[in-house]
Amino acid sequence: MNKRAKGVTVWFTGLSGAGKTTVALEVEKRLAEQGYYTQRLDGDIVREKLTGDLGFSKEDRNKNIERNTFVAKILTDNDVITLCSFISPYESARNYAKKEIMQVGEFVEVFVDPPLEVCEKRDVKGLYKKAREGKIKNFTGISDPYEKPKKPDITLKTDQETVKESAQIVIDHLKKRGIL
Amino acid sequence: MNKRAKGVTVWFTGLSGAGKTTVALEVEKRLAEQGYYTQRLDGDIVREKLTGDLGFSKEDRNKNIERNTFVAKILTDNDVITLCSFISPYESARNYAKKEIMQVGEFVEVFVDPPLEVCEKRDVKGLYKKAREGKIKNFTGISDPYEKPKKPDITLKTDQETVKESAQIVIDHLKKRGIL
Repeated sequence: MNKRAKGVTVWFTGLSGAGKTTVALEVEKRLAEQGYYTQRLDGDIVREKLTGDLGFSKEDRNKNIERNTFVAKILTDNDVITLCSFISPYESARNYAKKEIMQVGEFVEVFVDPPLEVCEKRDVKGLYKKAREGKIKNFTGISDPYEKPKKPDITLKTDQETVKESAQIVIDHLKKRGIL
Repeated sequence: MNKRAKGVTVWFTGLSGAGKTTVALEVEKRLAEQGYYTQRLDGDIVREKLTGDLGFSKEDRNKNIERNTFVAKILTDNDVITLCSFISPYESARNYAKKEIMQVGEFVEVFVDPPLEVCEKRDVKGLYKKAREGKIKNFTGISDPYEKPKKPDITLKTDQETVKESAQIVIDHLKKRGIL
């Protein structure tokens, strides 16, 4: 039997390779096992149909967040637990998402925060290497800024925690806030 | 208490002024009264945040449908009754929406079909006048094609039915299909 939580968007922000999607997948799995409606949104899911025309300039990044926020807001409004994983390097864009979504439900900002060196060492998609070689421009953390969240609801040290531990921290927070 | 229906997208297609949004609003109201999660998507809702960059060329119309289909599919997958009102003049685009959404739930095509003369006489937004004067190009029914649905699930004659009657036809269909 599927259950409805209180509408919420959990917004994972952090560098490429920080573990945003990995943790979101584990949270999604755990919540789905409990019968909650959940929806993940991340680059791999939205790029083809929703944001394929956008690049990595500040303007395009902002449009990316605007479209995804629109979708997350609608889902939140329909009491779906929405798990957004976007680098979302600009504080203003994250604040925009928060403001929009809090009109209809809850917003949880999760700063996925291993050191840059760890992300670069992981380099799952080989992007850091290309960025260092100058083959990718506007790469967050290398040639583009990442504005750290000042007061995130949760900070995950994914270099020191297992994926299960990080996911548990998120779930505990949702329980504490009365969302689950 | 909110209830979940089986996931469905009800897709209203027809000329500008046909009554797509008017009927969708009435359906939404009736379903909300019964406690169902419902979400409307139409030009006025999505233009600002989701599709503001798109015009009325065939390519842009297709992108418009692609983005909205993406959103409708996610909502349908989360068992929200999704009411889409888009002129969607091209059969190929409507078939695309149907194919995508039927991967996760039900799809109901509603042809909102008063005569063009009725739509033009209503001219709620003054668009037909502008189109006749050549001030708007690519206007469906005047200077751009509208490909009528060949086998819609429902045809609404909004020039002969009241809004409540049209909405009832949609709701009866949803019941008959076992969706409500």
